[in-house]
Amino acid sequence: MTDTQKTALVPATHTTPPAKFSHGVRKGNILQVAGQVGFLPAVEGRPPTPAGPGLKEQTLQTFANVKAILEEGGASWDDVMMIRVYLTDVDHFAEMNGIYNAYFEEQGLTQPPAARTTVYVGLPKGLLIEIDALAVLG
Amino acid sequence: MTDTQKTALVPATHTTPPAKFSHGVRKGNILQVAGQVGFLPAVEGRPPTPAGPGLKEQTLQTFANVKAILEEGGASWDDVMMIRVYLTDVDHFAEMNGIYNAYFEEQGLTQPPAARTTVYVGLPKGLLIEIDALAVLG
Amino acid sequence: MTDTQKTALVPATHTTPPAKFSHGVRKGNILQVAGQVGFLPAVEGRPPTPAGPGLKEQTLQTFANVKAILEEGGASWDDVMMIRVYLTDVDHFAEMNGIYNAYFEEQGLTQPPAARTTVYVGLPKGLLIEIDALAVLG
Repeated sequence: MTDTQKTALVPATHTTPPAKFSHGVRKGNILQVAGQVGFLPAVEGRPPTPAGPGLKEQTLQTFANVKAILEEGGASWDDVMMIRVYLTDVDHFAEMNGIYNAYFEEQGLTQPPAARTTVYVGLPKGLLIEIDALAVLG
Repeated sequence: MTDTQKTALVPATHTTPPAKFSHGVRKGNILQVAGQVGFLPAVEGRPPTPAGPGLKEQTLQTFANVKAILEEGGASWDDVMMIRVYLTDVDHFAEMNGIYNAYFEEQGLTQPPAARTTVYVGLPKGLLIEIDALAVLG
Repeated sequence: MTDTQKTALVPATHTTPPAKFSHGVRKGNILQVAGQVGFLPAVEGRPPTPAGPGLKEQTLQTFANVKAILEEGGASWDDVMMIRVYLTDVDHFAEMNGIYNAYFEEQGLTQPPAARTTVYVGLPKGLLIEIDALAVLG
């Protein structure tokens, strides 16, 4: 009997990670999404570029980037247990929550929403939000 | 055969989350507690209000809030694998550790204590500590 | 039938945690490594002392400390699903990535690299990096 394999989840449209890590991994029924930011789909010869101009566009692109990894691993938002939101500015909390609620309303979840932690940290210049997620497949 | 269900863990005394997320979720043997802060039990018509006046009261209320979610999901502190502590001030580290140790001494754990990471971040005004937790049920 | 046990993973060379938490825990196939920093192996009578003088030495010592816990639990880097990197300074990102890549190159992974999130937070004085990790054994 062979061990369970760990599979890298690397959507074709994602920019290359800045180091030797996977955008997502799945092993058995556990799927971990790496910290995603609001980078637009990769364009050859262009450095990673965040959606803009504001928090809303970055957040929605970040969600899209997380979702693409979930789907690459055969999962959906319904499987997500934990969403970690990193913001750079406490004053973005209310706006982010509005974007968050509208987004998940549209996703039509059939299971309860994931747990969440939001904290305020530093991020590389130009990035307003980063999100990672842990999913357990059913 | 139906998929494993994800269950929302929402203690009756908890304040409503500020967005569409669950205070805790359980799926199979995995239980994730969302970031909890030191909000006192909800009182209708009163905005979420942290215990006070100091770090000790907030920390103990935060622990109580985490514990209520664990229990809602059929778990206890003994099942917790990871505790993430977010403080706003490095100078609170020693005091928090003292509160932490005394609290877990009183809980009478029968299994080894969870792993922990503590980092210093920004939190909304008035909050000194936030804690989330990952548990694996036995 | 007894419940699955939670086992504490406490390498003999590690400094004592500053509070009642375990450097690592394993329960079933889940292994969680607590936040590790670049402390050199413990020397009796000496307070915990980070490797130095720079980011490279601290990072490599931190990796060694994480790895010792993984091995104590019967795991290896190949089992790691998620690595959380906490830096204190955005300007350390590129250097850390170089150290990270060289380190994992040397480890000779046979499975895809873990997912990763890097954020910038406060850490106790003298510490430049903290890392924790979640592993799923195969």
